[in-house]
Amino acid sequence: MSQALTDAVQLNVLAERPPIVPEHFRDSEFVFLANTHPSLQIQLLDQLKGPKFVAADTMNCWIENQAEDLKKLMGRIDALILNDGEAKMLTKIDHLAPAAQELQKMGPKIIIIKKGSHGVISLDKNGNFFSLPAYPTTNVKDPTGAGDAFAGALMGYLASAGKPDTGYLRTAIAYGTVTASLVIEGFSLSAVASVSRSAIDARLDQLRKMMEF
Amino acid sequence: MSQALTDAVQLNVLAERPPIVPEHFRDSEFVFLANTHPSLQIQLLDQLKGPKFVAADTMNCWIENQAEDLKKLMGRIDALILNDGEAKMLTKIDHLAPAAQELQKMGPKIIIIKKGSHGVISLDKNGNFFSLPAYPTTNVKDPTGAGDAFAGALMGYLASAGKPDTGYLRTAIAYGTVTASLVIEGFSLSAVASVSRSAIDARLDQLRKMMEF
Repeated sequence: MSQALTDAVQLNVLAERPPIVPEHFRDSEFVFLANTHPSLQIQLLDQLKGPKFVAADTMNCWIENQAEDLKKLMGRIDALILNDGEAKMLTKIDHLAPAAQELQKMGPKIIIIKKGSHGVISLDKNGNFFSLPAYPTTNVKDPTGAGDAFAGALMGYLASAGKPDTGYLRTAIAYGTVTASLVIEGFSLSAVASVSRSAIDARLDQLRKMMEF
Repeated sequence: MSQALTDAVQLNVLAERPPIVPEHFRDSEFVFLANTHPSLQIQLLDQLKGPKFVAADTMNCWIENQAEDLKKLMGRIDALILNDGEAKMLTKIDHLAPAAQELQKMGPKIIIIKKGSHGVISLDKNGNFFSLPAYPTTNVKDPTGAGDAFAGALMGYLASAGKPDTGYLRTAIAYGTVTASLVIEGFSLSAVASVSRSAIDARLDQLRKMMEF
């Protein structure tokens, strides 16, 4: 239930010509390459002028069918954000802690593995793990977009902090966690559209209290 | 992989006569009814003189085949400790947070759901959730006994604290979490036999640091 599986993708116009990054976005410092064909992710990256921090998402069908391009991409990004099934598929390792270490050897210094209702585990550039449970919402309506909400909040916080240091990255992952928990409480875009920064901050505080011992 | 499923149980002599609790154990204050037939758990409980805190474990085959006895047991215990698959099976609810709330309605004021490599989520008598990720060991050798190590460390800490208050319960769950993580790093009883209190305390500290943001 918590696993997304993609059977087929139609890239359509994207397969004919990669997207052009508008000139005024080319100096973006914090860049998230959302999930698409890894060669498109590379072509997007090629258009940027020395970003400070690049993260990328991927999925099962690129892991299975575009391994070479994905390997090239992994050599060029700072962080890989993927889910637990994808981490196991990419490394052929069933436990996430050693799988994260194996993924790190493939290039990205930072590995962030999303586990749906089980939270997140990440590995930083110093080899230290950081892990959070999910916020236990009792009001799940639609998990669509949870992963993108997670990545969006994470990147937004990092960009606002201005530095991708480990301390900021941990807080960014926590923001991703609670933002995703709010997004799944509404259908489609409605929860994203209505959620406020104060609701996100309140839930961040609740998450911290929920783990205190 | 993280789910234990029991196809059959042979109670053997236990089916003929329930175990007799020795006289000098009957005034035990903190009692854990390990996983066995729920009517045996009740008969063990009947022999005790007003314990302060009673927790019980159960499993899929009692949920499926001994629902009535299990229901009676649940009305007599303070805490139910079970795994995620069992919580879903018992409540027919797929999300663990609302499943925990439903389990609470069946009797036990405290619900503790073990999630194997994903950690633990619990619900206290005030309706507040507490959740921890698992300690990310990279050295898993044998998960056998992880659940009993979890429950044993939890009960041991509570008994040493002398009170089953929410604050102590949270620390007890954290002790259960890290003790289980040490036990799965060795085969059979070898890890339990060799683990020291200082190793457990050190890992408790690491767990806390691993979640800091």
